[in-house]
Amino acid sequence: MHTGEAKIRWAEQYMPVLREIRERFVKEQPLAGIVIGMALHVEAKTAVLVRTLVAGGAEVHITGCNPLSTQDDVVDALKASGVHCYAKRACTLEEYYSAIDQVLDAKPSITIDDGMDLIHRLHTGRRDILPLVLGGCEETTTGIHRLKAMAKEKKLLFPVVAVNDTPMKHFFDNVHGTGESALTAIMATTNCLIAGKQVVVAGYGYCGRGLATKARALGARVIVTEIDPRRALQAHFDGFELMTMREAAPIGELFVTTTGNLSVLTADDFALMKDGAILCNAGHFNVEIDIGWLETNADSIGRRDGIDSYSFGDRTLHVLAEGRLVNLAVPKGMGHPIEVMDLSFAVQALSTEYMAKQGRNLTPGVHEVPTAIDEQIARIKLAALGCSIDTLTEEQAEYMSSWNVGT
Amino acid sequence: MHTGEAKIRWAEQYMPVLREIRERFVKEQPLAGIVIGMALHVEAKTAVLVRTLVAGGAEVHITGCNPLSTQDDVVDALKASGVHCYAKRACTLEEYYSAIDQVLDAKPSITIDDGMDLIHRLHTGRRDILPLVLGGCEETTTGIHRLKAMAKEKKLLFPVVAVNDTPMKHFFDNVHGTGESALTAIMATTNCLIAGKQVVVAGYGYCGRGLATKARALGARVIVTEIDPRRALQAHFDGFELMTMREAAPIGELFVTTTGNLSVLTADDFALMKDGAILCNAGHFNVEIDIGWLETNADSIGRRDGIDSYSFGDRTLHVLAEGRLVNLAVPKGMGHPIEVMDLSFAVQALSTEYMAKQGRNLTPGVHEVPTAIDEQIARIKLAALGCSIDTLTEEQAEYMSSWNVGT
Amino acid sequence: MHTGEAKIRWAEQYMPVLREIRERFVKEQPLAGIVIGMALHVEAKTAVLVRTLVAGGAEVHITGCNPLSTQDDVVDALKASGVHCYAKRACTLEEYYSAIDQVLDAKPSITIDDGMDLIHRLHTGRRDILPLVLGGCEETTTGIHRLKAMAKEKKLLFPVVAVNDTPMKHFFDNVHGTGESALTAIMATTNCLIAGKQVVVAGYGYCGRGLATKARALGARVIVTEIDPRRALQAHFDGFELMTMREAAPIGELFVTTTGNLSVLTADDFALMKDGAILCNAGHFNVEIDIGWLETNADSIGRRDGIDSYSFGDRTLHVLAEGRLVNLAVPKGMGHPIEVMDLSFAVQALSTEYMAKQGRNLTPGVHEVPTAIDEQIARIKLAALGCSIDTLTEEQAEYMSSWNVGT
Amino acid sequence: MHTGEAKIRWAEQYMPVLREIRERFVKEQPLAGIVIGMALHVEAKTAVLVRTLVAGGAEVHITGCNPLSTQDDVVDALKASGVHCYAKRACTLEEYYSAIDQVLDAKPSITIDDGMDLIHRLHTGRRDILPLVLGGCEETTTGIHRLKAMAKEKKLLFPVVAVNDTPMKHFFDNVHGTGESALTAIMATTNCLIAGKQVVVAGYGYCGRGLATKARALGARVIVTEIDPRRALQAHFDGFELMTMREAAPIGELFVTTTGNLSVLTADDFALMKDGAILCNAGHFNVEIDIGWLETNADSIGRRDGIDSYSFGDRTLHVLAEGRLVNLAVPKGMGHPIEVMDLSFAVQALSTEYMAKQGRNLTPGVHEVPTAIDEQIARIKLAALGCSIDTLTEEQAEYMSSWNVGT
Repeated sequence: MHTGEAKIRWAEQYMPVLREIRERFVKEQPLAGIVIGMALHVEAKTAVLVRTLVAGGAEVHITGCNPLSTQDDVVDALKASGVHCYAKRACTLEEYYSAIDQVLDAKPSITIDDGMDLIHRLHTGRRDILPLVLGGCEETTTGIHRLKAMAKEKKLLFPVVAVNDTPMKHFFDNVHGTGESALTAIMATTNCLIAGKQVVVAGYGYCGRGLATKARALGARVIVTEIDPRRALQAHFDGFELMTMREAAPIGELFVTTTGNLSVLTADDFALMKDGAILCNAGHFNVEIDIGWLETNADSIGRRDGIDSYSFGDRTLHVLAEGRLVNLAVPKGMGHPIEVMDLSFAVQALSTEYMAKQGRNLTPGVHEVPTAIDEQIARIKLAALGCSIDTLTEEQAEYMSSWNVGT
Repeated sequence: MHTGEAKIRWAEQYMPVLREIRERFVKEQPLAGIVIGMALHVEAKTAVLVRTLVAGGAEVHITGCNPLSTQDDVVDALKASGVHCYAKRACTLEEYYSAIDQVLDAKPSITIDDGMDLIHRLHTGRRDILPLVLGGCEETTTGIHRLKAMAKEKKLLFPVVAVNDTPMKHFFDNVHGTGESALTAIMATTNCLIAGKQVVVAGYGYCGRGLATKARALGARVIVTEIDPRRALQAHFDGFELMTMREAAPIGELFVTTTGNLSVLTADDFALMKDGAILCNAGHFNVEIDIGWLETNADSIGRRDGIDSYSFGDRTLHVLAEGRLVNLAVPKGMGHPIEVMDLSFAVQALSTEYMAKQGRNLTPGVHEVPTAIDEQIARIKLAALGCSIDTLTEEQAEYMSSWNVGT
Repeated sequence: MHTGEAKIRWAEQYMPVLREIRERFVKEQPLAGIVIGMALHVEAKTAVLVRTLVAGGAEVHITGCNPLSTQDDVVDALKASGVHCYAKRACTLEEYYSAIDQVLDAKPSITIDDGMDLIHRLHTGRRDILPLVLGGCEETTTGIHRLKAMAKEKKLLFPVVAVNDTPMKHFFDNVHGTGESALTAIMATTNCLIAGKQVVVAGYGYCGRGLATKARALGARVIVTEIDPRRALQAHFDGFELMTMREAAPIGELFVTTTGNLSVLTADDFALMKDGAILCNAGHFNVEIDIGWLETNADSIGRRDGIDSYSFGDRTLHVLAEGRLVNLAVPKGMGHPIEVMDLSFAVQALSTEYMAKQGRNLTPGVHEVPTAIDEQIARIKLAALGCSIDTLTEEQAEYMSSWNVGT
Repeated sequence: MHTGEAKIRWAEQYMPVLREIRERFVKEQPLAGIVIGMALHVEAKTAVLVRTLVAGGAEVHITGCNPLSTQDDVVDALKASGVHCYAKRACTLEEYYSAIDQVLDAKPSITIDDGMDLIHRLHTGRRDILPLVLGGCEETTTGIHRLKAMAKEKKLLFPVVAVNDTPMKHFFDNVHGTGESALTAIMATTNCLIAGKQVVVAGYGYCGRGLATKARALGARVIVTEIDPRRALQAHFDGFELMTMREAAPIGELFVTTTGNLSVLTADDFALMKDGAILCNAGHFNVEIDIGWLETNADSIGRRDGIDSYSFGDRTLHVLAEGRLVNLAVPKGMGHPIEVMDLSFAVQALSTEYMAKQGRNLTPGVHEVPTAIDEQIARIKLAALGCSIDTLTEEQAEYMSSWNVGT
């Protein structure tokens, strides 16, 4: 079997929720006649989502959302099964945006984004297509953050469902998915031991929490940096050491950024870091570590698979995956684990269906995933796991809505 | 020193946030002339809150919110320092509500509740006082649940701040406070080992999550029961075994309920349980375990300090603290740890100040704690801990509000 | 029922291994005619061991092994059932040793010690009885340490079984028993939160490891101090911060000593500690914290149940349980959990039987518990738990003893 | 830089202990004139050991100890720097043993083994060289097990140091090294999520314990199987589910064997397993999973990078790395983390030096690593980490050797 196809089938077997949705889609054809434009990491799990949408009747045009995350054999397999796919691993920025344009040329009525590059392009260079769009779905925290900023300025001109802002997404995808896959990518790339290591995690959102918790669970000593006092305090009570990045810089052996913000690790920090320190990013964009400064100012630079080593006198700092999403962009990276993407992409699939049916009735702006979708996915997954849970009795339901029973 | 006074001073030293608020209250007198009616667990930490309010100028009338949680020596110490206190440990239900009435007789303009008994009484038997009330503060999930049910029926006639529904409360008080103190109370009462034990936690809200996580951390195997599919799935990915209570009943060795609902453990479950099983409740009210059925149907009942043993043939089931809040109601129980109550009561103190200033401008119903209050407390606590955190640079703040920067 | 008797029955129900041994002892009477002298913590679990020995035919004379750990109602219950018991809570040192002498007056042929006080007295003040003694059993690390020192100087004149030096003892009793019960005692006494606390554990033996691991599991940040470089490194790879006590003193909020050595926390450390620091000991003797210095040098001393507060200017340091074993000696302390003592005391019971049968054939000195005893107890416990485990097939057994099969 | 050389330098920077030993070796030349024969996994970390030995004056001849674990670019780098290296990735068994013979042709006076293949060959086919051999060092549990079986039959004819049987090795290499690297290899190969997964670990020795603990720490539910009742009970108190493999087979989703025994997963288990179950081995030899049966009996077999998929009707079972050491033998595997191999190989280096100096004085058989070597390594590592630890005072040292001080 073709390697891309084999990868897709491997993923598919651990995606029972998408499989069940696909079965229904085949019968109901809820996306019949809909053109969908996508910009997602093009790898095996995404391919299972694409095929689910196609099974529902959609015509899909897809490209990547990160220059380093595309798997070319999966691209081939998608193309072989008739999907329009424009992604290429290690493309230039020019090629990247040209592929985005190819997706838009197909005149999608629904967009699916991971980072908002498609919607951004639509609202800036390709406003001609805007009237055709029913709405969009956005996968990630960073994209939603950008969308909300856009909506605040009244610049967002169609409805978008915030796929990340649901319990089914951030508790599983962010905490467990990012946590496990980033650590795996780091360990598989560096061959370093997490146990005993002094790890610094920048940001204590869902991703940072997952990473900090799992690194400590493996035996690391973990320092957390934050800008929000309440999140900082949460890290404190969860047992982590709390510092400013300036205080942590000379102590850390492994730094992971998860803030979604830029300039988290900069020249001032680099100057304080130990020889051999390893730096990487688990946030969406490659702006958290100031790679530009390192490239410009290093005395010498060594490059191996997924590791760039910047030397300053007798100190060398190692950056993984060029500061891009470490779990996807290192050569051994495979992105989020299959099982969490089954849930996240199930939210995508059902949100796309929702947009196809309700998009016309929604106001421009950022919309939450309907709770019913989230719960439906949870129930399908529990059934696939063979887990039973309790049901409220009538007496209990009544008690929960009463206010008269006290001490 | 009097034992009650010694207990209060012990608590006070680990409550730096309340101490700092008190210093400001002494100067600013924000509660001057305000009568406050309270129904909280009357023990050392609460006394520190009471004194903080008094320091701010308030006249405080207080009683308990649970017949088994009052510490009589603390009552004495409060009275000795001029606070009007009507609580008594092990009071009858009649005495309990008579004390509630004494608090209301003082015509409070602000109420502070833990479970909504005061507000309930106000809206049912004591509607005469209603016009005098500016508003209330409610401490606990159960009370807020009741208040929202009340508000939904438009029966709640003044504004109430939901102290529990803030990150400063549920991440610390519910997860860590309930988790640690319930386990401590169970271990100190039973002398049983948690490691290796088969523990069943009913409910995976913040309290259940804290308990399940900490019990497993000590070495227990933990089963979670839930009625909400998304919470259930969260428990699954957090590594817990998921079952219905009927499936868990014959396996469990220690059962802890945290649902806030009634009839979680009933005759059908008791019938399946192992000899020696230990049952207790960490939810607010004593309705989760069907104590009535056990009292009526047991072949024989043995009672020791905090343990009632119900025998059925050759099986005996042990219930701790009569099914009341186990961390407070067993003889060795001391309630939540001091450090979490410092935060929770700081929210109470500042919410009371907020109600004194803004109550007149708020609509009847349940109101969130203003974010500024929550953040202010977090900052005081971080300062007390000697922790520094990062601050957004201008460049970062701008980036976070922009939507133009993509791949 | 009498409270002492109730306590013993409570413990008994969670001690299936001792119950099964007792059943066999009743039939086989392996201790018929043997006088046993014991110095153990006299509380409910010990009483179950005593009754097991009595059931096997022994005449038991028992006293305590720590002035603060005796439970007087258990003493009463033991006496009521005909056991010779001389222990008393809060006895003076003089009374303590007088009770030791009463045990020896009974001319025991087997001794059971927890800390070696009985054997020490026998070899110093009561050498007249030495010829009558078949041998002894020693419960704890400290006692074994002393015995080995004694044996090294050829001063130990009869065989002693080292009950602590077996997997069944140190993995369960030391790691889980000491770990959980010390933390429970600390939390139940201080009402402090472990989560977020800076804990310093002195010593990374089995007890220290249990404590450090469980404290961190509850959310503490844990510093370990050690004198052995290999143990220190183990703590490092297990994720703990490693320091000298001098470095840790100004940082710690809760100090627990588990070294078995003296002068672990001394005047030099006290001088550096934070106001409000809590100090306690989980090692056998009260020599690890220099209480004498505190008592002599404090500006003022406050005393409450289990807490002595030493003030120096504006700093106060709190010592729990007078520096004695914190899990037993605080008022709320109940000692090790029942389930671990079931195993440890099963080793005692079977080692006593072994000494009764084989003592005459053993040379003076410290002897290991025969592996067969350890394994037998493990099998009884697994059966009581309803756990099945695998058995080596013949093919596997052969493979394990072969050396010919390679790559 | 050549990729092999780059890999070696990457490893070297995280191996401070070997670097310090090498510095001394350069000066002291303790291995001058010694021919060393090695059969180890030939990859970057091993190369650092090889160069350390060469720096000490030795002439090194090396081959692999597993047909799938050699990294060919590291072989090239070693050859380029003058080392005699005969290893080749994916060699046949014939090539494997022919390379072993090439090593022996060099007439080594010291052997270094990982699995005892070299010593086995020496004692069977190449007894002519035996008189030249001073002694050997053995790296792994399995090899030591074989050596002890050999010694028991008096077939082992020279002294061998058991490098694995030291705290510096099994607490770090087995627990943390095997634990982390096996999980990393599994996650990087399968892209599966550990959180929520039902994992079955066969064997609860040091490796099994590390794996079980770390898998649970990531969120897995873990079942342990054992044949030793005491280890089984340890797993129970550590919070794991205990079962026979027959009971676990139908439940498990991921199986990892760590027993060192053969036929741990066999046809009877395969018959019960779920569709999609993943099987792998973290023990030394590929005998734990009955690959032969699967190869012979599967309806169809699919093969991708590191995954063989055996289909039986509608069920497919996936075996990683052909049942060989999963952390080394999957394509993305890099073996143990660098930092633990720094310690393990430091024991090798110093044991080799010890054998060069003392081999002539040692009797044939299995010898422990001298404690002084172990402690010396711990001290070098602590210094490299910048950690200080406490030192016994005279008073403390005296107390520890006394037996007179009691209650």
